[in-house]
Amino acid sequence: MIILGIDPGIATMGCGVIRYKGNRFEALYYGAIRTSSSMTTDQRLKIIYEELNALIDAYQPEAVVVEELFFNTNAKTAIVVGQARGVAVLAAANRSIEVFEYTPLQVKQGVVGYGRAEKAQVQIMIKTLLNLEKVPKPDDVADALAVAVCHAHSGNFKNMFKIK
Amino acid sequence: MIILGIDPGIATMGCGVIRYKGNRFEALYYGAIRTSSSMTTDQRLKIIYEELNALIDAYQPEAVVVEELFFNTNAKTAIVVGQARGVAVLAAANRSIEVFEYTPLQVKQGVVGYGRAEKAQVQIMIKTLLNLEKVPKPDDVADALAVAVCHAHSGNFKNMFKIK
Repeated sequence: MIILGIDPGIATMGCGVIRYKGNRFEALYYGAIRTSSSMTTDQRLKIIYEELNALIDAYQPEAVVVEELFFNTNAKTAIVVGQARGVAVLAAANRSIEVFEYTPLQVKQGVVGYGRAEKAQVQIMIKTLLNLEKVPKPDDVADALAVAVCHAHSGNFKNMFKIK
Repeated sequence: MIILGIDPGIATMGCGVIRYKGNRFEALYYGAIRTSSSMTTDQRLKIIYEELNALIDAYQPEAVVVEELFFNTNAKTAIVVGQARGVAVLAAANRSIEVFEYTPLQVKQGVVGYGRAEKAQVQIMIKTLLNLEKVPKPDDVADALAVAVCHAHSGNFKNMFKIK
């Protein structure tokens, strides 16, 4: 199963594509879509949409997975991130790919097996599971891989986590 | 000049298309795109995107205008509305249509000429300027027409209001 994990943001959108087969993981791609604050929001969203479409076409994921946004952020940040997230969810929906979401607690539980794990523990587990030379940078990319791994581990319960 | 005004929301997205020529207004279309809460977010965003594309194709607006979201709402609402807004902005960007935004205060100023006007005053002015039989319902539709009228009135300063 091929899974695209996304950590939404307008300046930096973390993306990670993994293959999960027979309990083994492989990182097919990871990186960030970046847009400059000197551009207008419409230009930035268009770039994000086009790059995500290109990723989806290249790797044909069966599932797109996003982390549920923190609700304790401020409303201004939430609107900006929400716009980027909407575009990511739309890119999946337009290709009829199922979208799933997990809370940060579920991601930690799904990757490390412990909901209160530190960020560094999650990153080291991602590096190990995916057999990477080092922890992917920036954090958005590691987070995108983590939410994809979480989904693979939750495969049997996936209908529980369909985006609401 | 043809302007599409949008009041973003995931359950109800108000839309209003106006023509502004020689200081006269005409409402070409107004109504709401509605999606059911029984659907998943990805399905809802896809419907919104497709219906907005259909509106844009039908009326070929030169500008798409959205009201700046309230920043005093809670983060959960802001994320949900932000997602719908992102899809609306993307629909415009994908057709190379310029996107503008105005604060609620600017809309009141631009429609009624007074930034502290009541909602009812804005609605009556919209009904009068567009020569409608009654105030459009729901409020989201009247708000969408109001932001479009505001943009028409601000035409000379439009570069000041390009979406950031």
